[in-house]
Amino acid sequence: MFAARLAEVQDSAAAALQAAIARQPAGELRDAMAYAAQGGKRLRAFLVLESAALFGLGEAQAMPAAAAVEALHAYSLVHDDLPAMDDDDLRRGQPTVHVKFGEATAILAGDALQTLAFGLCTDAALGPHRVELVAALAQASGAAGMVYGQMLDIAAETAAEPLDLAAITRLQAGKTGALISFAAEAGAILAGADRAPLAAYARALGLAFQIADDILDVTGDEAAAGKRLHKDAEAGKATFVSLLGLDGARARAAELAAEAEAALAPYGEKAETLRAAARYVIARDN
Amino acid sequence: MFAARLAEVQDSAAAALQAAIARQPAGELRDAMAYAAQGGKRLRAFLVLESAALFGLGEAQAMPAAAAVEALHAYSLVHDDLPAMDDDDLRRGQPTVHVKFGEATAILAGDALQTLAFGLCTDAALGPHRVELVAALAQASGAAGMVYGQMLDIAAETAAEPLDLAAITRLQAGKTGALISFAAEAGAILAGADRAPLAAYARALGLAFQIADDILDVTGDEAAAGKRLHKDAEAGKATFVSLLGLDGARARAAELAAEAEAALAPYGEKAETLRAAARYVIARDN
Repeated sequence: MFAARLAEVQDSAAAALQAAIARQPAGELRDAMAYAAQGGKRLRAFLVLESAALFGLGEAQAMPAAAAVEALHAYSLVHDDLPAMDDDDLRRGQPTVHVKFGEATAILAGDALQTLAFGLCTDAALGPHRVELVAALAQASGAAGMVYGQMLDIAAETAAEPLDLAAITRLQAGKTGALISFAAEAGAILAGADRAPLAAYARALGLAFQIADDILDVTGDEAAAGKRLHKDAEAGKATFVSLLGLDGARARAAELAAEAEAALAPYGEKAETLRAAARYVIARDN
Repeated sequence: MFAARLAEVQDSAAAALQAAIARQPAGELRDAMAYAAQGGKRLRAFLVLESAALFGLGEAQAMPAAAAVEALHAYSLVHDDLPAMDDDDLRRGQPTVHVKFGEATAILAGDALQTLAFGLCTDAALGPHRVELVAALAQASGAAGMVYGQMLDIAAETAAEPLDLAAITRLQAGKTGALISFAAEAGAILAGADRAPLAAYARALGLAFQIADDILDVTGDEAAAGKRLHKDAEAGKATFVSLLGLDGARARAAELAAEAEAALAPYGEKAETLRAAARYVIARDN
């Protein structure tokens, strides 16, 4: 049931995002945006739609927020992959945006995808709380959230000592955690409800997701992952695996997934798909 | 009176923007953001505050929008100056952000300044129409606005033929015009009033501003401008001066400034400072 639901979201969120991109002026910029927005697990869109469903908000209402979080995520990947940043040439099994369209276009496509994300959050379908959604997205993605985490990641590459567990957890909380939290809390924000249970769920889920990513970087298959693996070990970077060991990392991820599931208790049966997502993030192969 | 008012805005908008940046986590990213947000004419902030004043909205209400438009403008300059884009090493008389902080930090500081701009537009002080302000900022700065113009500019550099007047006007409408229009319309947006007169004012003002920029690129003094000049001529790029001649460009700018002033007729005396701004943009030396 979870896999089917995620596949559904992959299609519907991708369609909503591509439709928003298709409303921009034609040209290479739009082509690069559309290219950057292809593929991906759409886990963040799933979290938006499923957290919205907890509060009785349907897809027609929540979809612009799901498309927004995927636009924001796509922008972050385009900029992270740039030569001056992680310098990656492969993403989701395809050449990265700057490899295919050039660096200037990649910078601008990322910039425009960020803008699009905020524009999507103003869609009237989202209802009276959408300005709070914009504020939450700004908090999650800016200098106190995702970009902060990315900055810590860059600093770590030139640091004299590898990061310790506290530092790497802080890095993750920004780099991937903040946007996952935004996505999981989006339903509560749009409903004007208490965000605390979903915030606790998302904190555990986001960290479990990152630990699983570090495990995949060691054990994963490049074809399934669609990106270069083993980069962290080659670069001598600290990861949850290097700090906890492979077994320790697996145990910690399982513990966090259980913690994420437990945080959903207030929602009872309704949250079953979100619970399945917590099990999925530690079991996935890409 | 206009010069005194602009100087006031330079101080108050700069203070508001720097205060918002100071609320971000300490570190090199924040330092780079603060550095990028220094200096400048603050014409856009002025337009926000003065258009708001037309509708009886005071600085306490409109200032977050003024800081937002300056944050957005600062982000656009940081990214425009990058090696992969215009590759400028001097801006407002200082080393550009990537020269001072490195390219990765410059990309991230620009990204975070864009995010900050949207975050500022959600400030409750802006009142019930702030979600429309967010939507307008997304429209002005994204793939149909500023970034679109920047993309046309990059394409022009490798085009076989120099641009004609229609193409260069379209480029300007995006690259500098869209954000100037946003700024000038902000007051009407926040007041829930008709945007048409300010839109007409801003269209003429923005074009006059760009023509004056092209004139300054030929006749200006680098010390006063705080950036490299004569770049367009050296690069063989079409400008309003290359297409209209120096006298023709001056005449067109004066015509547009008069048009901008005339568009403010519905607001009578109250719009005098905005009229003075139209005279200023064609008379400035930087």
